[in-house]
Amino acid sequence: MITMLERVPTGIPGFDELCSGGLLRDRSYLVSGPSGSGKTIFAMQYLVNGIEKYNEPGVFVATEERPQHLREHFLTFGWDLEKYEDENMLAIVDATSTKIGLPSDERYIDVRPFDTRSLLDQIITIQDEIGARRAVVDSTTSIGFTISDPAKFRVELLKISTTMEILGLTSILTCEVVEGGGDKISRFGVENFVVEGTIVLYYTRIENTRVRSIEIFKMRGTNHSSKIHPFEITENGIVVYSKEEVFA
Amino acid sequence: MITMLERVPTGIPGFDELCSGGLLRDRSYLVSGPSGSGKTIFAMQYLVNGIEKYNEPGVFVATEERPQHLREHFLTFGWDLEKYEDENMLAIVDATSTKIGLPSDERYIDVRPFDTRSLLDQIITIQDEIGARRAVVDSTTSIGFTISDPAKFRVELLKISTTMEILGLTSILTCEVVEGGGDKISRFGVENFVVEGTIVLYYTRIENTRVRSIEIFKMRGTNHSSKIHPFEITENGIVVYSKEEVFA
Amino acid sequence: MITMLERVPTGIPGFDELCSGGLLRDRSYLVSGPSGSGKTIFAMQYLVNGIEKYNEPGVFVATEERPQHLREHFLTFGWDLEKYEDENMLAIVDATSTKIGLPSDERYIDVRPFDTRSLLDQIITIQDEIGARRAVVDSTTSIGFTISDPAKFRVELLKISTTMEILGLTSILTCEVVEGGGDKISRFGVENFVVEGTIVLYYTRIENTRVRSIEIFKMRGTNHSSKIHPFEITENGIVVYSKEEVFA
Amino acid sequence: MITMLERVPTGIPGFDELCSGGLLRDRSYLVSGPSGSGKTIFAMQYLVNGIEKYNEPGVFVATEERPQHLREHFLTFGWDLEKYEDENMLAIVDATSTKIGLPSDERYIDVRPFDTRSLLDQIITIQDEIGARRAVVDSTTSIGFTISDPAKFRVELLKISTTMEILGLTSILTCEVVEGGGDKISRFGVENFVVEGTIVLYYTRIENTRVRSIEIFKMRGTNHSSKIHPFEITENGIVVYSKEEVFA
Amino acid sequence: MITMLERVPTGIPGFDELCSGGLLRDRSYLVSGPSGSGKTIFAMQYLVNGIEKYNEPGVFVATEERPQHLREHFLTFGWDLEKYEDENMLAIVDATSTKIGLPSDERYIDVRPFDTRSLLDQIITIQDEIGARRAVVDSTTSIGFTISDPAKFRVELLKISTTMEILGLTSILTCEVVEGGGDKISRFGVENFVVEGTIVLYYTRIENTRVRSIEIFKMRGTNHSSKIHPFEITENGIVVYSKEEVFA
Amino acid sequence: MITMLERVPTGIPGFDELCSGGLLRDRSYLVSGPSGSGKTIFAMQYLVNGIEKYNEPGVFVATEERPQHLREHFLTFGWDLEKYEDENMLAIVDATSTKIGLPSDERYIDVRPFDTRSLLDQIITIQDEIGARRAVVDSTTSIGFTISDPAKFRVELLKISTTMEILGLTSILTCEVVEGGGDKISRFGVENFVVEGTIVLYYTRIENTRVRSIEIFKMRGTNHSSKIHPFEITENGIVVYSKEEVFA
Repeated sequence: MITMLERVPTGIPGFDELCSGGLLRDRSYLVSGPSGSGKTIFAMQYLVNGIEKYNEPGVFVATEERPQHLREHFLTFGWDLEKYEDENMLAIVDATSTKIGLPSDERYIDVRPFDTRSLLDQIITIQDEIGARRAVVDSTTSIGFTISDPAKFRVELLKISTTMEILGLTSILTCEVVEGGGDKISRFGVENFVVEGTIVLYYTRIENTRVRSIEIFKMRGTNHSSKIHPFEITENGIVVYSKEEVFA
Repeated sequence: MITMLERVPTGIPGFDELCSGGLLRDRSYLVSGPSGSGKTIFAMQYLVNGIEKYNEPGVFVATEERPQHLREHFLTFGWDLEKYEDENMLAIVDATSTKIGLPSDERYIDVRPFDTRSLLDQIITIQDEIGARRAVVDSTTSIGFTISDPAKFRVELLKISTTMEILGLTSILTCEVVEGGGDKISRFGVENFVVEGTIVLYYTRIENTRVRSIEIFKMRGTNHSSKIHPFEITENGIVVYSKEEVFA
Repeated sequence: MITMLERVPTGIPGFDELCSGGLLRDRSYLVSGPSGSGKTIFAMQYLVNGIEKYNEPGVFVATEERPQHLREHFLTFGWDLEKYEDENMLAIVDATSTKIGLPSDERYIDVRPFDTRSLLDQIITIQDEIGARRAVVDSTTSIGFTISDPAKFRVELLKISTTMEILGLTSILTCEVVEGGGDKISRFGVENFVVEGTIVLYYTRIENTRVRSIEIFKMRGTNHSSKIHPFEITENGIVVYSKEEVFA
Repeated sequence: MITMLERVPTGIPGFDELCSGGLLRDRSYLVSGPSGSGKTIFAMQYLVNGIEKYNEPGVFVATEERPQHLREHFLTFGWDLEKYEDENMLAIVDATSTKIGLPSDERYIDVRPFDTRSLLDQIITIQDEIGARRAVVDSTTSIGFTISDPAKFRVELLKISTTMEILGLTSILTCEVVEGGGDKISRFGVENFVVEGTIVLYYTRIENTRVRSIEIFKMRGTNHSSKIHPFEITENGIVVYSKEEVFA
Repeated sequence: MITMLERVPTGIPGFDELCSGGLLRDRSYLVSGPSGSGKTIFAMQYLVNGIEKYNEPGVFVATEERPQHLREHFLTFGWDLEKYEDENMLAIVDATSTKIGLPSDERYIDVRPFDTRSLLDQIITIQDEIGARRAVVDSTTSIGFTISDPAKFRVELLKISTTMEILGLTSILTCEVVEGGGDKISRFGVENFVVEGTIVLYYTRIENTRVRSIEIFKMRGTNHSSKIHPFEITENGIVVYSKEEVFA
Repeated sequence: MITMLERVPTGIPGFDELCSGGLLRDRSYLVSGPSGSGKTIFAMQYLVNGIEKYNEPGVFVATEERPQHLREHFLTFGWDLEKYEDENMLAIVDATSTKIGLPSDERYIDVRPFDTRSLLDQIITIQDEIGARRAVVDSTTSIGFTISDPAKFRVELLKISTTMEILGLTSILTCEVVEGGGDKISRFGVENFVVEGTIVLYYTRIENTRVRSIEIFKMRGTNHSSKIHPFEITENGIVVYSKEEVFA
């Protein structure tokens, strides 16, 4: 019975060996960190690996950036998102343009950006079309800002993560924390409550250099490293040095 | 007369010897700690031990997670919750689904998730059916978020803990504290007022490793350790090292 | 003329010698400290000693705990509150049950728990019946939470303390401070303004052990120790080590 | 022309030599410090010395304590306030009783305690009767709490201090700061703006003892010590050790 | 073209050599510091030197103190403000009396103290009469308190500084910062945005002595010292020790 | 395909070599720092270099300072803005005067200063006239103050940066952070979310001297230095010492 908890490898070099082989199938995880720490790269690499290595289609909900930016930006890592979209292996939801009053000629548009239900309906439609197994919402912080009440935001996040799970999606929700704030693992202090695991990306100044490191803070049903490991953003994406440790 | 204060052992290895044999019968206790510190495991292990070792049925109110998750998650510890439920030794109240607008086919559903009275009525019904002696509310934080006023939350918690006591339930209420917040023992600063004892789980970074430790902060009518002891989450659940101390 | 300031010994071992023999007759004092520091024990021991050693009846207003709990809890110290109540030496006001919507079969019930005037009327009635000389309100924090405005709370506290004084009661008001908050001597920052003295109970972690200590922070008209002294909760109640000092 | 700035000695041993002989005639000063630091004693001693040593009648506005308490309390220093009142050398305004709904049989009562204008009218009347030269308002914090807006409080304080000056009163306004708050010299962050000088009383824990010290923080038109000096509350009142310094 | 930026020397000993000879003509500067740091003295000395050394008339807007106080206070430095006023070299605007409901027999009265427009009209009138070149507003903090919204305050300050510049006034705006607040250079966090330069006066406790020092934090179009220099308030006003440095 | 990300050199000595040759074409960057750190100089130097070295016209939106000030101020660096304007190489939008109720005879005026849409329309018009490739908004903080809700401000900023990008403008948005605040990289905690990169200017006190340094905190699609480098404001503008590091 215990083996029913299937693993979903991220494929990110060095990461999966920190957590018994990967994420749990049909669960939601938070990836949090400050601006510039590499959250969006982590999340997209998880989808790209799903497509390239495990034949699992993916959905990327972009609440802060227009899809065209993402396509251009990730080409620098050699990831050809447009090709994946053409192959029906990737769907990018433009949840940015409508919010700022711009037209969009994207295939998937979140036309009611302040309505969680509408976003979930959009994802259900995509599921019918491409049969995704992996999903990313980048970022929940953007959603949190549109909801003034932390209690409501908590409920909305719970709706998102639970719907994802019911749809058979193993998902990553990103969360932008404020540099220098007290709580390092979430923005509104409620995000980590509604997920099965929290992965924290650090972007710390040590003397006069910024250093990146990663911690699996919480991961239910999983033996995971309790240490902080360095990582780098290389020209091929994130590489975690699972054998090394950071003393911060 | 003094012997009238009966002990309810948690059965968690190493814990009961820190507090003269266990909790006091018909009292409510707070188990607080940050995300990932092991509160839900502590609480469920208390119920499972009640069933397995002391023949005491238990109630688990799940305000943040759907029961099916709990069942799958705790199978990794070898705890077969479904079996206990079938034997009428365990009742899990789904206080999550309705709140986020999802249907639920659970046996016990909290259909009015923002109404403490309704939750207590649900528990009274369960008491009639399974005659529980132990209860868990996981977590009070979720309830606190639905009540904007700390003064009202305080009164609602007092209602919950007192009703539990009147129903003959020795209960554990969990409380999620924010990592890096000033007050380490409660979320809203009122939870610990309304209970007979507070147990704090720490999840502290020492150099670059997270270490778990436990402190019995307050326990009325009980000689208890005034030290902080390390604990681990093993494949069989929590083990407290009562002979060891942590210097934090 | 100076000798008109009569002393009311608390009878708590080691305490009275720190403050020229005790409290001043017909004055109100604040006993503040975090959860678990021993405030309720201090306050009840003051009343029990009044009854046992000085033949002074006492009133205990319980705003957070049902009287039955108090009776059970204090039996562990060998204090038989029920006996004192039967002898008309002690009155316990149940200011908890009505607040949380529970019936109460107590002799003295505060039926309008959010109305200071009503509470004072209740105490006046008790005064007629048992002629109390000592009083405790445990705790003012509970009252403060029902009043949103610090300015109003201040005035209400001033009403309580002044009425106590006019009724010939030397009283202790307890005040719960938040662990880790900035201000260690009151909850709402106004409690200590309206009393003749403030006694602070500390419950401090030193390395990995919690240590208890006491400070007489302010006591008008009294030469008092300016040091912090350790105390313990023994099986007979609080014992202050007035000859020892704590370096915190 | 420069000599027109007349000095008003406080008569407090050691204090006047710290500030070129005393306060400036017809100016207002703030005496601030935490609960228990000795503000009320400092203020009353200033009035008593005015009466005993300099033949200057005084007014004491008591916003927190009933006059009878003050009379009893200060008898312990050998100051017979009642005698001074009988001799028309001292007027105590009861600005406490009405506020908390108690009757008062005092000679001077502030019957509209939330109206600065009314208080000032009361003081004008007293001026006619006893020709006071010194005044104390103990404490402004009590007034601040009744005014929700710092901007309004600032204006009201400016009204009080300016009216005092126009009435020919050299006055001391006390201000209670919160123990452990960031700003050590005022409660609402506006009190020190409207006075000619600010005297700060410290009540600091050094190791495990509370130590008292005094600093003249600001005193316009006056050469004053820029150091912090220890003081004690003796049986005759405050004694400042102007030759000694405190290293805090 | 570069030489078009004319310098306005403050004449304060030691200061002008820290900033290439003085302020820039027709610009506004902020002088900020805690209570007691010497802001009003700095500002008035700037005007007095303008009159005495550079034949430039000045305007002083007093929002916190009645003009008569200023005249008396500054006589202690040997500055005869009344004489300057009689000679039409100085105008003092009483922006205090009306605000607190007192009559004023001053020549220049700000009769609508909560209306920036009205204040500026008053200054325009004065410009017609005395042709001032220098101005002081002491203090902006008083204005900030009457405007609840930082955004509005910011706009009002921008109005004041810009109008001053258009009127051909080189002006100093004082700003009272709170002792112990995080941000040491402004009260409401917006004052320094709207000026060409910010001069900070420190009043720091070093061991048990208060020490004064000055920093030119920002001064557009000017080479200025990047160090902190000690200064003293002598019987002739402020003297900056430009050759010395403070290590704080 | 990867080479499609064209570089836009700032031309600021030492800066472009820290970031693979400059900014990315048609992206928006945040330059943040405290008052006095040199943000406006950095931004204008970027435009002036665009004109002088790369033949790219520029737009400068001035929300805090009137254009005439800018022209006078930057002449001290030898930058003749007026000449550039006459040559149709530079457009300065006066977004200050209308806001404070002053007339303006500038060519480009933001007549509805609290309406982002209006500002963008103004920029679109300028694009038609001068065909700008570079833009500066100095500062976003001023805009943030006019919008009370961070969520709305975030959306407005996203509108600005996205519109800039669509108009073919590579833009710098400045952001004023508060000295001593916790978060060093933005004012309202949302600015850095909506841009492709964040450049932080520090203005730090080291012992008793202020030192300037620069960090490229985030720059998508770009290999950039992860160190902090010193810079100076010389008579020719900013010079970054890319070979040196600062240890702060």
